[in-house]
Amino acid sequence: MYREADVKKYAELIVKTGVNVQKNQIAVVRTPVECYEFANLITEKAFLAGAKDVITIYSDSASQRLRFKHATTETLCDVPSWSVDRLMKYANEGACFISITGDDPDAFEGLDQLKIGESKKAVMKANSPYYDKIDKGENQWTVVAYPGKKWSSKVFPELSAEEAQNKLWDSILSAVRISGNEDPVKEWAEHSAALASHCRFLGESGIVSMKIKNSLGTDIEIGLAEDYIWAGGSEKTVDGVEFQANMPTEEVFTMPHREKVNGIVYASLPLSYQGVMVEDFYFRFENGKVVDYGAKKGKEALTQLLATDEGSSYLGELALVAYETPIRQTGILFYNTLFDENAACHLALGSAYAMTMKGGPDMTKDERTAKGCNDSVSHVDFMFGTADLSITGITADGTEIPVFENGGWVKA
Amino acid sequence: MYREADVKKYAELIVKTGVNVQKNQIAVVRTPVECYEFANLITEKAFLAGAKDVITIYSDSASQRLRFKHATTETLCDVPSWSVDRLMKYANEGACFISITGDDPDAFEGLDQLKIGESKKAVMKANSPYYDKIDKGENQWTVVAYPGKKWSSKVFPELSAEEAQNKLWDSILSAVRISGNEDPVKEWAEHSAALASHCRFLGESGIVSMKIKNSLGTDIEIGLAEDYIWAGGSEKTVDGVEFQANMPTEEVFTMPHREKVNGIVYASLPLSYQGVMVEDFYFRFENGKVVDYGAKKGKEALTQLLATDEGSSYLGELALVAYETPIRQTGILFYNTLFDENAACHLALGSAYAMTMKGGPDMTKDERTAKGCNDSVSHVDFMFGTADLSITGITADGTEIPVFENGGWVKA
Repeated sequence: MYREADVKKYAELIVKTGVNVQKNQIAVVRTPVECYEFANLITEKAFLAGAKDVITIYSDSASQRLRFKHATTETLCDVPSWSVDRLMKYANEGACFISITGDDPDAFEGLDQLKIGESKKAVMKANSPYYDKIDKGENQWTVVAYPGKKWSSKVFPELSAEEAQNKLWDSILSAVRISGNEDPVKEWAEHSAALASHCRFLGESGIVSMKIKNSLGTDIEIGLAEDYIWAGGSEKTVDGVEFQANMPTEEVFTMPHREKVNGIVYASLPLSYQGVMVEDFYFRFENGKVVDYGAKKGKEALTQLLATDEGSSYLGELALVAYETPIRQTGILFYNTLFDENAACHLALGSAYAMTMKGGPDMTKDERTAKGCNDSVSHVDFMFGTADLSITGITADGTEIPVFENGGWVKA
Repeated sequence: MYREADVKKYAELIVKTGVNVQKNQIAVVRTPVECYEFANLITEKAFLAGAKDVITIYSDSASQRLRFKHATTETLCDVPSWSVDRLMKYANEGACFISITGDDPDAFEGLDQLKIGESKKAVMKANSPYYDKIDKGENQWTVVAYPGKKWSSKVFPELSAEEAQNKLWDSILSAVRISGNEDPVKEWAEHSAALASHCRFLGESGIVSMKIKNSLGTDIEIGLAEDYIWAGGSEKTVDGVEFQANMPTEEVFTMPHREKVNGIVYASLPLSYQGVMVEDFYFRFENGKVVDYGAKKGKEALTQLLATDEGSSYLGELALVAYETPIRQTGILFYNTLFDENAACHLALGSAYAMTMKGGPDMTKDERTAKGCNDSVSHVDFMFGTADLSITGITADGTEIPVFENGGWVKA
């Protein structure tokens, strides 16, 4: 079957371009149990690329749902040290991390969101030393996709389970530039170079803030952090190993100034947050902080998100994505951040990536904060891009530089 | 479907009769990834029985095969402390442990058995504090079965994958006394009582050794350890919680004296050891130790087994099983110890169960050894029972007590 060959190409692309496994490196594969066979394809390719060992860490949202339903908040928040030690051991040994997304987007619907929020917060907090290392660029990592059965049927509710999964495979393989490409590794190198040229343009422009507007009602000015960097396409670890943190990726992104955001932004796509769908929502910011918000559906999940910690009410990421991309061309709403964030311009509430500030990874947290970097245990993307989006950059002397018109790049 | 209802009954039986989950107890489910949905059924029943939390630990023999194939012995023997800490944490917190067996019996065929043996030995050694606790009866545990696809096709090679799996489900559900029983929990209580009556008979008999013979060529005298106990059916933890360590179970078993075994024993069924099938094999013992062995197929695996440590060449268990049982009546060779050991009388090379010696769990290792208890990091069962097996018990004054004739119990 053509799909089987393409799936193998995808596994190889993940290993070579995604995390770029190095000789004698440990690879960690974090996967839903449902796609253990796909995880094994990746494992085999990682060994063939010279990995010293491949450790698979399984999870299952259906099992997790039972825990969230039946266990107490106290039990769920008591994060076992073995699970923290496991990630840290491999991170300390210089491993690369492959995370497969594809589980049920509605896995936790109908449950106590407060309990889930507390539990997730405890897990994130316990693992913050691991996330710090990742954020500092000490390890390669990538997030990739597998069409889980529940996810597939959510995206294609009109199809049979099997047809839905096949169609979502097709969509994923198109979105990650596998389909029809003889040499996806080369294709990705070129794609990554194009994203880098947008970054150069923005980085050399002297822009200090961005005015963003569209017909949904979005009207916001987002100041950028001092010494911001525009990132996109491949990243590099502190040791200079290139990797792609997301597959697919279509975005270039930077660090907003945590206290220089004013105005209102309307989401243009639903958000799946901790298994709950949030739809038709907005946030209003004053001096960087969310001071008002609303949603036609799932507002409670936003309340949880914003209550995570101090930083979860401030922005940590601004990402620009042209309205027309291979992902958008599939015409599908994926209900999965990895895809939907690459289908539209987006913002993230919560932690900023230290790597989007010059010298950021080497600074203390306080030094970064002084330059406008936001900190939080959470990082949640939401989409605001539309076909009529306009973005204008403003330089220190007030010069206006058109960046987006009608949803796409004015100039690269 | 009738089978779905029976599978749910099985999950409930595992929770109630298998480990007998207590209110506010933690349950740990160790499962092949393939049967994550069955594991979730057990998880749900455990929560409904009052479990405080249910932790699922996944494994996958196909992933493990890739590690055994590609990683070095040094890497494989470097057992991560998080994996040891994980089992110990829950054991120390008084958890019960449910292990699901059902993975590919031939998973590791064709690989370097020396490497696999070293790796398994390292894992067993690292986890010996956990196994010590289990052996001392500090935690309830049970081993149960799920018809994995590869296992099913191995048992029924003439059927399609789906038919084979369905047929193995039927066989398992018959063997564990679910099929046709309105109340399997009650059925198991009665079955367990019958096994206990065999134990009483043997325990009160004053037997010090057993002479065993059949037409395969087996001719061996097995001395029993001092203060041996005959166990079978349910067990009890040190805190008095009843559980069934194996489902199915048809055996009553005791502790051989590590230095009082002389003669030859021929296997009556193949052995699946670390993914390798060993067929038509024998062991010859002198003063308890294997001094000669052979196999028509898979002898190398036996070499590995015997080289595990000093104790792996001595016996740790003698188990009696009537030739006619529900398992035998399925007429199937299961290629899985849990079933095949309950289809026939068997011996185990390696560690003895401390609980099969009066006061054993409270003694030091040296104290147990002095009374004839064997110690090893391994414990591997092999079957010798046949339809013409005879077993005669010998008391201290030389009286002969017939125990088995023509493969079955002379008296209960």
